[in-house]
Amino acid sequence: MALPETTALALDRQDGVLHATLDRPDAGNALDAGLIDDLVNTFNAVRDDRSVRVVVLRGAGDHFCVGADLNALADFDGDDASARDEATAHSRRFGELLETVDAAPQAVIALADGAALGGSFGLLCVADITIVTTDTRMGMPEARLGVPAAQILPFVVARIGAAETRRLGICGHQLKGGEAARLGIAHDVVDDAEAGEDRITAVLEDVLACAPGAIAETKRIVRAARTAEPAALLDAGAETFTDCLTGDEGRDGVRAFFDKRAPYWAQGDGDA
Amino acid sequence: MALPETTALALDRQDGVLHATLDRPDAGNALDAGLIDDLVNTFNAVRDDRSVRVVVLRGAGDHFCVGADLNALADFDGDDASARDEATAHSRRFGELLETVDAAPQAVIALADGAALGGSFGLLCVADITIVTTDTRMGMPEARLGVPAAQILPFVVARIGAAETRRLGICGHQLKGGEAARLGIAHDVVDDAEAGEDRITAVLEDVLACAPGAIAETKRIVRAARTAEPAALLDAGAETFTDCLTGDEGRDGVRAFFDKRAPYWAQGDGDA
Amino acid sequence: MALPETTALALDRQDGVLHATLDRPDAGNALDAGLIDDLVNTFNAVRDDRSVRVVVLRGAGDHFCVGADLNALADFDGDDASARDEATAHSRRFGELLETVDAAPQAVIALADGAALGGSFGLLCVADITIVTTDTRMGMPEARLGVPAAQILPFVVARIGAAETRRLGICGHQLKGGEAARLGIAHDVVDDAEAGEDRITAVLEDVLACAPGAIAETKRIVRAARTAEPAALLDAGAETFTDCLTGDEGRDGVRAFFDKRAPYWAQGDGDA
Repeated sequence: MALPETTALALDRQDGVLHATLDRPDAGNALDAGLIDDLVNTFNAVRDDRSVRVVVLRGAGDHFCVGADLNALADFDGDDASARDEATAHSRRFGELLETVDAAPQAVIALADGAALGGSFGLLCVADITIVTTDTRMGMPEARLGVPAAQILPFVVARIGAAETRRLGICGHQLKGGEAARLGIAHDVVDDAEAGEDRITAVLEDVLACAPGAIAETKRIVRAARTAEPAALLDAGAETFTDCLTGDEGRDGVRAFFDKRAPYWAQGDGDA
Repeated sequence: MALPETTALALDRQDGVLHATLDRPDAGNALDAGLIDDLVNTFNAVRDDRSVRVVVLRGAGDHFCVGADLNALADFDGDDASARDEATAHSRRFGELLETVDAAPQAVIALADGAALGGSFGLLCVADITIVTTDTRMGMPEARLGVPAAQILPFVVARIGAAETRRLGICGHQLKGGEAARLGIAHDVVDDAEAGEDRITAVLEDVLACAPGAIAETKRIVRAARTAEPAALLDAGAETFTDCLTGDEGRDGVRAFFDKRAPYWAQGDGDA
Repeated sequence: MALPETTALALDRQDGVLHATLDRPDAGNALDAGLIDDLVNTFNAVRDDRSVRVVVLRGAGDHFCVGADLNALADFDGDDASARDEATAHSRRFGELLETVDAAPQAVIALADGAALGGSFGLLCVADITIVTTDTRMGMPEARLGVPAAQILPFVVARIGAAETRRLGICGHQLKGGEAARLGIAHDVVDDAEAGEDRITAVLEDVLACAPGAIAETKRIVRAARTAEPAALLDAGAETFTDCLTGDEGRDGVRAFFDKRAPYWAQGDGDA
């Protein structure tokens, strides 16, 4: 696997873990077209590579991400048809980013500090494990600008349910770590970014003890279960189970259990 | 917009905020056919009027609402076919009420004290922001009367998920403010109704900072996301985004952001 | 109704309450084919019998259940086609168990202590009321063995939503009572099994105050509401309501309300 060329996203691979850091600190890591492209391209590049087992998202500097880059709208002419088309395509690209991360077969961990607003609030909602500091400011302020957070709302619903999403969307207020944890947006609230790194280390220990293929199938099944009755998923689920059981991971996992040793994917430091 | 004639619901419009108070205090504001009609007619009357930006629901007297008016059932003859049809129609009307409030484009705030049982428990579950006192008694006692809360249960599921709804429905017990907040039925638990009014003031400040059209679109998108995968909503969402961005609200919202001023809908006291 | 012959599940009927205890204490009540059969057969046997109003699930000995019986996999030959088919059928049978309990018209209460892992974690997620001790160890360790918890995950999603399910599934860590309660897996966390019995007594008082037919309809409606919009359920719901209102339960329930007496199903000690 070759990692893509990126300009606004700093990539650092450490064995099975890909650290991807939003890297426009002077602009608060605002999500402009380039940064969105870098993120989408990176997740697409590693999608079929099970040796990349975890992606960790962070923001460089004081903020995870202040949201969309509004400067692109400063000279926006709403009466110009091609400008309208461009705005629609740019908006749609946010949704593609969130869908791509949500569908990633890898475990995705996000660590946020400072601001995590708008589109980047959506990123926190599609990460599998989200760690924020007590003072991280989160939310969807879009309605205060006169627009709905149309690409983000569906992923927030998938994260915390429709009722709380509606409340956040029509109040447009900022929430901090405590409320984010209570709602299920954040899983860990830490005092500062340094404590967040300690949590990441602990979470990685859990995630790297799990087989990468089994994680990918787990995420796929859970996504399907969001809009299907359990009973509709069980026949295919049993086939998937046997496929995994008779694959490399299942064979070694069961053998390792009886041998009282770690399976091959859990040996060493996460090197795949 | 003309507000409808109502007899059991007291209406008081203050600029963009419509205060609607269940007004049968001698009957604990029990939901009889007249009160249900008043509520449905009121929400329908303001539905397409974006100058009514918020509806605040309260109960006159000691209770938000004690539930359905059981007196209508005292002489009910279950063997009479037309009485049966009437019972079915009356039951169905509860669901219509809840669906109408749930689909309201306005922000809906509910403040409850005393009892909020049965059908009115459903009202708390379709309000966008629900404030209750510590001692408010809530729940669905229907199964203790030998019937399922058939019109209410689906909206409780939409609010707090199927698992907790099932538990509440088959226990039929009453819950207080603390449990209601933990389950996501209530968003704020206050000591008494007066403290509830202070919370309403604070919530109104948030809601009135958001554009009314953007709120309506936000609520519409979130409703659609309850039973659809995010990916299925993104194309239409991008069109909606651009429509709003190039509409009055989006144009002024973005301009106001760069001008560092409040947009037109957030000036003054909520006057639309 | 005749209770089925069981070997790994101890059955004890007390009036309207069926106590079903996983009874392989020397094996930590591991879910082997026999125990799964006993559970499925028992729930099927009582399904249409409204005189069995509650099923209480417990584990004999130190554990609720340590999970699947891995010994069946010790000599598993993944290259043998008939062994593969057998593995698929066995996996699928777990899903059938969970679906059967989830669809039970009776109230289902589960009390867990010790371990409640894998398939039995699924059982906790389909019980209507789940009581665990502070130290109960729960979770889905499957991915650490190289396989997804394919039959269990959909029911965990139905219980606590997709986001938390995904996190639990890809970390494979164990959770205790406090986290289980916060996530909505457990409804009561008690110090020890004895305190759990006190909670069961209290819960039974609530459940037996509700009419058994109304409970069955409540559970059916809530299941339907998991994947349908509320509006789609209201017409049928109104018919169900009238059917119940004009049935034995509704007639006596309403009459009892006006007579200020207990309805027939709530008299005595739960004897149906």
